[in-house]
Amino acid sequence: MAVGSGELGTLHTVGGVRMAAVSAGIKKAGRLDVVVFELAPGSVTAGVFTTNAFCAAPVTLCQQHLATTAPRYLLINTGNANAGTGAPGLQAAKSCCEALATAAKVAANTVLPFSTGVIGELLPAAKITAVVDAALTELVTNDWHKVARGIMTTDTRPKASSRQLQLAGKTVTITGIAKGAGMIKPNMATMLGYVFTDIGMTEVDAQSAVKQAADLSFNRITVDGDTSTNDSCILVASNQSGVHFDSLSAADQQRFTAELQTVFIELATAIIRDGEGATKFVTIRIEGGATTQECLQVGYAIGESPLVKTALFASDPNWGRILAAVGRAGLANLQIDNIEIWLDHVNIVRSGARAATYTEAAGQSVLSKEEFSIIVKLARGSCDETLWTCDFSHDYVTINAEYRT
Amino acid sequence: MAVGSGELGTLHTVGGVRMAAVSAGIKKAGRLDVVVFELAPGSVTAGVFTTNAFCAAPVTLCQQHLATTAPRYLLINTGNANAGTGAPGLQAAKSCCEALATAAKVAANTVLPFSTGVIGELLPAAKITAVVDAALTELVTNDWHKVARGIMTTDTRPKASSRQLQLAGKTVTITGIAKGAGMIKPNMATMLGYVFTDIGMTEVDAQSAVKQAADLSFNRITVDGDTSTNDSCILVASNQSGVHFDSLSAADQQRFTAELQTVFIELATAIIRDGEGATKFVTIRIEGGATTQECLQVGYAIGESPLVKTALFASDPNWGRILAAVGRAGLANLQIDNIEIWLDHVNIVRSGARAATYTEAAGQSVLSKEEFSIIVKLARGSCDETLWTCDFSHDYVTINAEYRT
Repeated sequence: MAVGSGELGTLHTVGGVRMAAVSAGIKKAGRLDVVVFELAPGSVTAGVFTTNAFCAAPVTLCQQHLATTAPRYLLINTGNANAGTGAPGLQAAKSCCEALATAAKVAANTVLPFSTGVIGELLPAAKITAVVDAALTELVTNDWHKVARGIMTTDTRPKASSRQLQLAGKTVTITGIAKGAGMIKPNMATMLGYVFTDIGMTEVDAQSAVKQAADLSFNRITVDGDTSTNDSCILVASNQSGVHFDSLSAADQQRFTAELQTVFIELATAIIRDGEGATKFVTIRIEGGATTQECLQVGYAIGESPLVKTALFASDPNWGRILAAVGRAGLANLQIDNIEIWLDHVNIVRSGARAATYTEAAGQSVLSKEEFSIIVKLARGSCDETLWTCDFSHDYVTINAEYRT
Repeated sequence: MAVGSGELGTLHTVGGVRMAAVSAGIKKAGRLDVVVFELAPGSVTAGVFTTNAFCAAPVTLCQQHLATTAPRYLLINTGNANAGTGAPGLQAAKSCCEALATAAKVAANTVLPFSTGVIGELLPAAKITAVVDAALTELVTNDWHKVARGIMTTDTRPKASSRQLQLAGKTVTITGIAKGAGMIKPNMATMLGYVFTDIGMTEVDAQSAVKQAADLSFNRITVDGDTSTNDSCILVASNQSGVHFDSLSAADQQRFTAELQTVFIELATAIIRDGEGATKFVTIRIEGGATTQECLQVGYAIGESPLVKTALFASDPNWGRILAAVGRAGLANLQIDNIEIWLDHVNIVRSGARAATYTEAAGQSVLSKEEFSIIVKLARGSCDETLWTCDFSHDYVTINAEYRT
């Protein structure tokens, strides 16, 4: 049901950020379903959001608020996506923001709303507005485990990542949480991801950083090829570390960006490890493409093929299905004689056919592992891309056939 | 495991066509796995083939032979796809054609080879060449049931369709067989489909007819979004009815084309009804698109969404997943307020949100049926398109996880 230990390690406090998770009764009674983050004045917030045309009411409102002023609160609920709900849905999201803003004595547009859960049912706003006072009372500087649990839906475990690095003689911290599980093929962002750092950043730099980091992490994962209506990924730079990104050397900026990227990738891959019904964590590496786009086309053709994914579930090195997926990916003038396919260190396809050195036992030994790589060498250019996926199991069907029952 | 009765009805003899199915031991001993069709001199044959870049050896050879001369025999084996097999695979396909040609005293390039089954294993040509004499001995004018069984792989039942119509005072017959089951998102053709008619046709007309008929049938179905390496669809016009297509009035040509289209659609939808693990047969109708392409984009986004398909399996009217699939289909400037979604006669989405008249009970009453339609009205133009799919069940995972065991 999930790959790897899921251990979260030390989750560092980020200056200027407080958090709380409470139960509003949207999901089962007593289960955490509302999370609030408080951001210190001076924090810079940037985000990327779903490209689904039916984007949810909170996504619309969140983008409006973000464009208007500097956010002071993030208000997240699970159990209801508030998507496909039209004008009443937008009103419900607004009333939640207003209730939190009134209780916190800030302007309503400094609250960013996020929702995840069932699509098409009106958000029970009254349940959320009823708990905003309690949430504000419970704000603490470090309970990442609790808030990571608070944003879970069909996730089986919380997802978080944390890094510290020394920059300009000071300690800079990056800590983030995410949730995923199903309807996972983010396009510009994941289901929900929140990354906080105490570095200072301009809005332009923060937006550029979140876009780039999300592109190479949340936008490189797929569970089932379905893009949610609610995907949102947020980066908060609270400027409490005494270090400002602008004043760093180019080398230090690069070090920070690399650590930020690592946190994003750890969160994104945690979503895949806990993909609905996942028993395998698979890295798909496409090398030697002419363009990034064609690498991704091939990668997703493999990563979204139900036939490949069920073979992975069975630990069956049915490599013909990988080959067929490469062949149907739509690349013009694909010279199949030049293509190699590898499972970790085992070469399975060479010159358009089974490699002479390949043995079923060697393929089996890779696929019987919980984690491995599928590597396709296209020999068409110098682009390499990595993406991550999981297998397709009976539990995926069970979870999604019974989601609303 | 399959939707509907699967009754084949009367399967009419087509003058000029004889057939046989034998067992070569490629699959389990005693199971039919080699089918031979004999075509009378003067028959015109046209075909459409997979667009998968890793197209199989028999597909390559078949296209070469078809371009060279008028075919006299179709030689089909199951149990091995002879795909991803490189030069030895091509040699194996050639030797099978040569063996049949020698036994039948025709040129080798008048034999069209077809293979379906596991990808990546070399075709056991000796097993096939050993049975060509027996197959020729057993040729009969009408055993469609047997040859339809002879081309099955994971199909649970044979697929055939037959029509007769009066043209120019004579009876014209069209009879076809097909196989499918999984790796089904044909692109220019289906896994294997063979349609025979005793009308006379020029090669140009036959090619145009098979292309158009396949486009609106086999190219409008999807089980799992995977395009096979071996898809082939063949139309044979044996010219034995005394009616030639060329000499018909435009109205009669249209009548013939319509009947031919019906046979193709019956075969294609039979593949979906018997899709791997299928428990629902679903017609997806996209109306009011600006182009055919955008109708198909939306249709396939729905028909290939694992989340939609698992909800269909559960008979769960989780229409939010259909809405999310429409939203992520990639249509530029999609005005969600104009979109309607219907389940048969039940309106579920209007103005971008749940229709006021919609009730869960009404949605449930449609989805609890074995066969129903999902209709999306885009209100962007005058294109309508229909495609067909099935649900995604536990049995799909079981069948594909255990395919080679």
